Amino acid sequence: MVAADNLKPTPKQAHFDLITYLKERQKLCEAALEKAVPIRYPEKIYEAMRYSLLAGGKRLRPILCLASCEMTGGTIEMAMPTACALEMIHTMSLIHDDLPAMDNDDFRRGKLTNHRVYGEDVAILAGDGLLAYAFEYIASHTKNVPPERVLQVVAILGRAVGAAGLVGGQVVDLESEGKSNISVETLNFIHNHKTGALLKACIVCGGVLAGASEQQLQRLSRYAQNIGLAFQIVDDILDVTATQEQLGKTAGKDQKAKKVTYPSLWGIEESRKQAQQLVESACAELEPFGEAAQPLVALAHFITNRTY
Amino acid sequence: MVAADNLKPTPKQAHFDLITYLKERQKLCEAALEKAVPIRYPEKIYEAMRYSLLAGGKRLRPILCLASCEMTGGTIEMAMPTACALEMIHTMSLIHDDLPAMDNDDFRRGKLTNHRVYGEDVAILAGDGLLAYAFEYIASHTKNVPPERVLQVVAILGRAVGAAGLVGGQVVDLESEGKSNISVETLNFIHNHKTGALLKACIVCGGVLAGASEQQLQRLSRYAQNIGLAFQIVDDILDVTATQEQLGKTAGKDQKAKKVTYPSLWGIEESRKQAQQLVESACAELEPFGEAAQPLVALAHFITNRTY
Repeated sequence: MVAADNLKPTPKQAHFDLITYLKERQKLCEAALEKAVPIRYPEKIYEAMRYSLLAGGKRLRPILCLASCEMTGGTIEMAMPTACALEMIHTMSLIHDDLPAMDNDDFRRGKLTNHRVYGEDVAILAGDGLLAYAFEYIASHTKNVPPERVLQVVAILGRAVGAAGLVGGQVVDLESEGKSNISVETLNFIHNHKTGALLKACIVCGGVLAGASEQQLQRLSRYAQNIGLAFQIVDDILDVTATQEQLGKTAGKDQKAKKVTYPSLWGIEESRKQAQQLVESACAELEPFGEAAQPLVALAHFITNRTY
Repeated sequence: MVAADNLKPTPKQAHFDLITYLKERQKLCEAALEKAVPIRYPEKIYEAMRYSLLAGGKRLRPILCLASCEMTGGTIEMAMPTACALEMIHTMSLIHDDLPAMDNDDFRRGKLTNHRVYGEDVAILAGDGLLAYAFEYIASHTKNVPPERVLQVVAILGRAVGAAGLVGGQVVDLESEGKSNISVETLNFIHNHKTGALLKACIVCGGVLAGASEQQLQRLSRYAQNIGLAFQIVDDILDVTATQEQLGKTAGKDQKAKKVTYPSLWGIEESRKQAQQLVESACAELEPFGEAAQPLVALAHFITNRTY
């Protein structure tokens, strides 16, 4: 769901209706995800996977992937299996993140966390199942894309989730907890890997599927890196300023865990300024794509203006 | 390590030196695995992944994959990245299986389990990292194989690990624990999925990489199904008859957990007979491959004769 007051279009994008765009794309993604994971025997594991996968997130990752594929000349159909896989992987990381041995969270997206409903054992397996299925789904459901491109997507995604990406960021995050002398370099490493790597994969994979040139992929990659960091800065700001109801998850938990965050390093105002600058750099990368870049430009602004 | 007294070659395989074959292949696999996961920053996660991956298992899964690829006309080089990935996936399943929320095991392969050394949080992430890396590794390291075959391998493997395979078997296993009225159908489901699916993937993927025909793949698949179940029956028998020292993991834990096992349903002798019959059916599938089938035939017999 997108609240209208989150969107403050700049004059440049005034003619692009992001609200309608997001609603349409969210609907497409919901339908594709719903279809991707039917319930079979043993029902419990499929229910657990669906419980978190279909819990109504913003679907930012799949939407970014579709947008990037279209901007570089591909179609929604070419990117949809990868878009679904990205949401499966994102969901798996949330399920495992929330486990008692990790962040020990009770709420996520306004609902009880997976292990609070299905138990820790099933939650671990639901995450594993989603991760494995993501790769299966890309490999078996991507149509009208040359197989070498699909393989490249598998490699990029695998890297984005593993120790060189998300998992590596998680480990440094865990090691940094409770330490008050974390440098901005370490904080950047954590976020570049924990959040940034998968966001970047969304955007780059969209381009790869469409057959984008090396130069185009590099632009996509820099766009992604900038909005990834902006996204995390805004997340840190919201942890301080938003309520639990707005976030759908426990608010203020960074402060409680004594985590070093961008607001704790820079203050709220400077953090907002930095996020804004990153978004502008991101959008500058997309200038050569002209009109076709409108959705990704609007999405970049949406990320910093969101209130949840 | 292979103990000579495990091998009782039938007259047919008398001229095939399985001990030397296994030693050579284990050495190849160890070297490839060692190389596949170098230590980088953040070191802790790579160390945790390597701790379990390089803990000296029998490497049966990668060896089966290489053997099947060679039997159907491929080379070791074509299958090695997939072989390594299979061991990564197997290791991930062991790490997550041993977690306190699952089997809560302290020992594995004669060493402390991953979470007992690195903590539960890192153990969960090490498993996730190995699973993601397995797919990345296949996609980025497989050489001289047409990309559509590699994609097929990704799809088969993903399915073998997810809710339609290993994870699904795990869930039914967890649900069955403590119940004494489990049917042989449920027990077969558990093992066909928990152990069988990945073993089958090893053997079928070897054939796919080599470009085996549909008919050949079906033979490989039936061979795999039979030895998969035989493997599990022998595992159940060993849990009753072998010592902890021989197994390198906690012995007698099935009985302690009141798990229904093949020996508990059929008794030890009948279980042995069933396993032997399954191995014979498995080997019959390989007759059309002639001499080239020697390693897989010998491996099938090795599985039922093993004492650890």
